[in-house]
Amino acid sequence: MTQRIPNKRTPFDAGFTIGFIGGGQLARMSALQAFRFGMKIAVYATSRDTEPVEHMTPTVFRGNLNDEKALIDFAKNCDLITLENEFLDSSILERVQVATGTPIFPSPKSFGLIEDKLTEKQTFKDAGISVAPFRHIKSPSDLGPFGEEFGWPYVLKSAKGGYDGYGNTTVRNTEEGMKAWSKLGGNDGRTVIAEAFVPFTMELAVMVARNQTGTVAYPCVESIQQGHICKEIIVPARVPEAIQVQAQELAKIAGEAIDGIGLFGFEFFLTHDNQILLNESAPRPHNSGHYTIEGCVTSQFENHIRAVCGLPLGDTSLLAPAAVMINLLGTFDGPAKARPVTPILEISNAHLHIYGKSHSRMGRKMAHLTVLGADVEETLTQARQLAEKITI
Amino acid sequence: MTQRIPNKRTPFDAGFTIGFIGGGQLARMSALQAFRFGMKIAVYATSRDTEPVEHMTPTVFRGNLNDEKALIDFAKNCDLITLENEFLDSSILERVQVATGTPIFPSPKSFGLIEDKLTEKQTFKDAGISVAPFRHIKSPSDLGPFGEEFGWPYVLKSAKGGYDGYGNTTVRNTEEGMKAWSKLGGNDGRTVIAEAFVPFTMELAVMVARNQTGTVAYPCVESIQQGHICKEIIVPARVPEAIQVQAQELAKIAGEAIDGIGLFGFEFFLTHDNQILLNESAPRPHNSGHYTIEGCVTSQFENHIRAVCGLPLGDTSLLAPAAVMINLLGTFDGPAKARPVTPILEISNAHLHIYGKSHSRMGRKMAHLTVLGADVEETLTQARQLAEKITI
Repeated sequence: MTQRIPNKRTPFDAGFTIGFIGGGQLARMSALQAFRFGMKIAVYATSRDTEPVEHMTPTVFRGNLNDEKALIDFAKNCDLITLENEFLDSSILERVQVATGTPIFPSPKSFGLIEDKLTEKQTFKDAGISVAPFRHIKSPSDLGPFGEEFGWPYVLKSAKGGYDGYGNTTVRNTEEGMKAWSKLGGNDGRTVIAEAFVPFTMELAVMVARNQTGTVAYPCVESIQQGHICKEIIVPARVPEAIQVQAQELAKIAGEAIDGIGLFGFEFFLTHDNQILLNESAPRPHNSGHYTIEGCVTSQFENHIRAVCGLPLGDTSLLAPAAVMINLLGTFDGPAKARPVTPILEISNAHLHIYGKSHSRMGRKMAHLTVLGADVEETLTQARQLAEKITI
Repeated sequence: MTQRIPNKRTPFDAGFTIGFIGGGQLARMSALQAFRFGMKIAVYATSRDTEPVEHMTPTVFRGNLNDEKALIDFAKNCDLITLENEFLDSSILERVQVATGTPIFPSPKSFGLIEDKLTEKQTFKDAGISVAPFRHIKSPSDLGPFGEEFGWPYVLKSAKGGYDGYGNTTVRNTEEGMKAWSKLGGNDGRTVIAEAFVPFTMELAVMVARNQTGTVAYPCVESIQQGHICKEIIVPARVPEAIQVQAQELAKIAGEAIDGIGLFGFEFFLTHDNQILLNESAPRPHNSGHYTIEGCVTSQFENHIRAVCGLPLGDTSLLAPAAVMINLLGTFDGPAKARPVTPILEISNAHLHIYGKSHSRMGRKMAHLTVLGADVEETLTQARQLAEKITI
């Protein structure tokens, strides 16, 4: 049974249109799957620059994420809306959904449970999932006690709007804490939270797809970060299978805790004593799941489309014993240009994806490379050698 | 080395745009691969209806295939042009290429060697490839002698414009021949050819990708036709390996004979005495290669993009011992609608592709299903059972 949407087309009717809020690489790769199912797409672009998905549809809307009127106009032109980013206000989404009858997945309600880091951590903690000790820092006088209880240094975070390390500051004492608290907007009424520093041995991630037909988890992967940006994903994670399975179970519980419909990424810290702490969640396809395009029977992008459309979820099994994904980050500032690409195209087990961004910037996510292999270490070595050669 | 195009961007520069002449399912599936490489696409649509690729780009041009001015306008907006159909005039293509500096692949020159069936058959015959006996029927008085020499019935074909059985008539005697000759435009100066009926045991097909970096052939497949339309593709063809290899070699020679740059489909008849006769060629991705999306390391659509962009060609190896592709043809007339889709989506080894056409028509190519398996017969049975369930 395909999902019934009041007054809207169902997914396999001609003209069925999925709207993406945000037009970057995640929407781009999901859109490719929507096309495979014969669907149309529309994009609500928030950047002044041309976003990748704008090249893939004649139906482009533009506005900021708080422009309720523009979002309503967009929603009227879509049969269903899904999100590429999480810097959205769940109450606005709720009103857009009500005003237009266009369903939004993940739902505004689910979204409300993770839209700020304080609510998010509380939601997952209440579901019995371990998280690092955290506290709402209501005033600078809360800074010292947190450090005394959980140790210095710790991390101050803005509850909303942080990603890839933006909006995070490590503080070593009260003085640094006060500066960071101001910088993060504590004086301006923004919610700032403190989070204890967790000495971890590895970062893990698990993608989950979930809808009324069921829940599926992808393999547990190992995430190598560099400067708070995902650099490499190693599949499967180099930890005992019991830990992989436990992370998958926790990810499913986390998806359940927010009654999530769609595709979700959960990032974990693995501690010295093999505790698994939930670190971050993302209500959308995630960088740690890009390897699934070639690495799994059903990619995270296909399961994203399946999940939000109410379709049966696809098999998440690995197609090779090992997979490595390396982000290709911008190596210069200027009009985008990849060189040389042929050494990668000549390798059968290497798969290159370029996102179609007009401009490159140092460190900007421009493309990724996935290498499949028989052995994790060999695949990692090969992937690094290939990735090193390219400037983008 | 990526291909250098004078005054044009090279394939991995931001904004590099591939133009497709024709916007149906073949262009759609090639476009998905262009997107994966970060490229933009443009379409020159020839139908009054909205074509599938029009939903995938803001850059749509419209005109007929003989409108040189409109084609030049289109070419000015593209870095490279490729073709979805073969009903084009090579001299117009040549002038468009010269006027705009936009390269067209396959080249107008290659195209000239296969643009009508008479030249095509002669080209391949001259290259030492066996074809069924044929003759240009210049006047009705040629009809009888051909039948007497090669036997009745035989097939009359218009040299240009035929596809999926349109433009073909089987004639049993001179009287039928005269009617068909008129109907095919013989009186109006159109070229009509006679082709001897070849009693064959099987139809085979091989896709070839070719450019300055090399030539690769895909596996030899078996093609089951119904009413002159491809219904099923069985991979590998159920013939001894020596015959498969021979068909692959002939396909490579055929690609060479037209100095083809791009992706080409060659269809063969296998006779009772294991002779392999070239029947038809297509200078583009082909229905018999759709299975390569999931069935091979590199799909025909990816190799199409690689070939025309001058990039190294990808591995054509099979990923499973058996693959079966079934065309899902329209089962009614009206706005497109597929029901029920979930039984297919629930099967891990089944892969559904819907083309996004607005309207269904009885017998129209609307979608296809590929099933991968360990055994050809079992895979065929499974694919047929799944395909039977769907109305589209």
